[in-house]
Amino acid sequence: MEDSFDLQRWSADCLTRVERALERWVTADAPADLEHGAPAELVEAMRYAVLDGGKRLRPLLVLAACEAVLGNTAAGLRAACATELIHAYSLVHDDMPCMDDDVLRRGKPTVHVKFGEATALLAGDALQALAFELLTPDDASVPAGMQAHLCRLLARAAGSAGMAGGQAIDLASVGKPLTERQLRDMHELKTGALLQGSVMMGAACGATSPGAWAALAAYGAAVGLAFQVVDDILDVTADSATLGKTAGKDALHDKPTYVSVLGLEPSRSRARELLDIALAALDDSGLPPARTSVLRALADMVVNRVN
Amino acid sequence: MEDSFDLQRWSADCLTRVERALERWVTADAPADLEHGAPAELVEAMRYAVLDGGKRLRPLLVLAACEAVLGNTAAGLRAACATELIHAYSLVHDDMPCMDDDVLRRGKPTVHVKFGEATALLAGDALQALAFELLTPDDASVPAGMQAHLCRLLARAAGSAGMAGGQAIDLASVGKPLTERQLRDMHELKTGALLQGSVMMGAACGATSPGAWAALAAYGAAVGLAFQVVDDILDVTADSATLGKTAGKDALHDKPTYVSVLGLEPSRSRARELLDIALAALDDSGLPPARTSVLRALADMVVNRVN
Repeated sequence: MEDSFDLQRWSADCLTRVERALERWVTADAPADLEHGAPAELVEAMRYAVLDGGKRLRPLLVLAACEAVLGNTAAGLRAACATELIHAYSLVHDDMPCMDDDVLRRGKPTVHVKFGEATALLAGDALQALAFELLTPDDASVPAGMQAHLCRLLARAAGSAGMAGGQAIDLASVGKPLTERQLRDMHELKTGALLQGSVMMGAACGATSPGAWAALAAYGAAVGLAFQVVDDILDVTADSATLGKTAGKDALHDKPTYVSVLGLEPSRSRARELLDIALAALDDSGLPPARTSVLRALADMVVNRVN
Repeated sequence: MEDSFDLQRWSADCLTRVERALERWVTADAPADLEHGAPAELVEAMRYAVLDGGKRLRPLLVLAACEAVLGNTAAGLRAACATELIHAYSLVHDDMPCMDDDVLRRGKPTVHVKFGEATALLAGDALQALAFELLTPDDASVPAGMQAHLCRLLARAAGSAGMAGGQAIDLASVGKPLTERQLRDMHELKTGALLQGSVMMGAACGATSPGAWAALAAYGAAVGLAFQVVDDILDVTADSATLGKTAGKDALHDKPTYVSVLGLEPSRSRARELLDIALAALDDSGLPPARTSVLRALADMVVNRVN
């Protein structure tokens, strides 16, 4: 399929840039204007949490949206890395014993297993701060107004009305029957807010019409929710080796999922509907189709992925 | 003493504004442009962590520096609250069992004791995000360039080369003999970075000459370190009731302190020296003395406080 071939090439190029940037920015070196760098062990834990791959879906969404609006590429790269730092910190904290108590992540010991709980806690905290530091470079590469807008979008997506709030609802809903609406609300915050935020941050790297902005918001919301529906499906249909994490975890922890609430086939239909919504939003965006082809391919990848 | 009387009146007025602002901003209400607010229990934990008083030294430093440079008052209030949110989140995480394992804070059960560890972890995470959200209002009250500058200063002060880094060094140094230099480096990051950052954020709310900026940085560094030296002194000389927290904790946890490294009297001399350095920096700032009187009084208060 031509589309997926293109996506693979585009993704590989983007991921190389993102990995190099993260490698450079998650470091103990003190900037020229500061006396101190960061302590080595803390930075080692931060690097361990961030530089071990993963799908990098959030950076890809940022960069795809940035390209769709012909955005500032320096800003796009910084925003891409910032969303990944937030995602990485959330995994570090989520894996801790007081949360999901997970010992493996992407086939490696989790951060708290390798570095201890206290260092894991601090590494997560420092990764969140670093995300905002990356968005506010002290040079002219990213206009100040764009820096502020990117910080605003990321702060909302990560905070109590976004990712952290969704995790709190998730915690509170273990063992409770949820309606589809309640489940959707939880996921819209827990994973949806940062995925949609990634699209919007990419869009904020350029100039967009109100119509394109709203369309990209609708696209981001649909892709964000589809990601979680598919996650729930894969948790019951895939094996741990394919997933790279423990399969069947949701049922084990008695967590409500799309599959437990709707059933497997209706969940698959729901994921396809969300893909249609995402693609229709791009059709209505007023953006030239040539510039939204990567966003289309990413939406397709999210829904049809196997891990 | 006229100075301290003035400071009390000034502080009371500032604290009223800060309390009202925190009361309004740490909330579950969804902004008009967002569908979701934050889950109630998470926000309750965030409010519990923030709205229970404390000295509010960081907000006072922000507001005093903002006044010294005739800064934007809306920006000053937001920056003041943002520094307090970062401070509050650090206390929530610091009190957790995997860190200092403290059950009392300001005479009340700590957040994890009252709400559980998972909620405490998420509340701290969400407070950090909220700090950056406060700095980036979606209106014209704070110029975009100022928003970006404030985010940059706060992110650096809070991150791995600032507060979080200092806590990591603190953890690693339990039970180890430190030189005064090593101790100073640790404290410059752990408490100094955010205290100095508070001064600089206040300064960033207005226009400053390079000379005034450097002088305020020197003032902030001296006051930040003095605060910690006095903290170490009070830990051995004050009782728990006066401190509002467990006295003698440092020795109990075998943590190196100024008193354990230098002795009590030399630590007192050191605090007085730092006060002199802070005041001399203001003399050299080029700012009119009338505008730096609050900063002078705050430095004096930090060194001569009893809790």
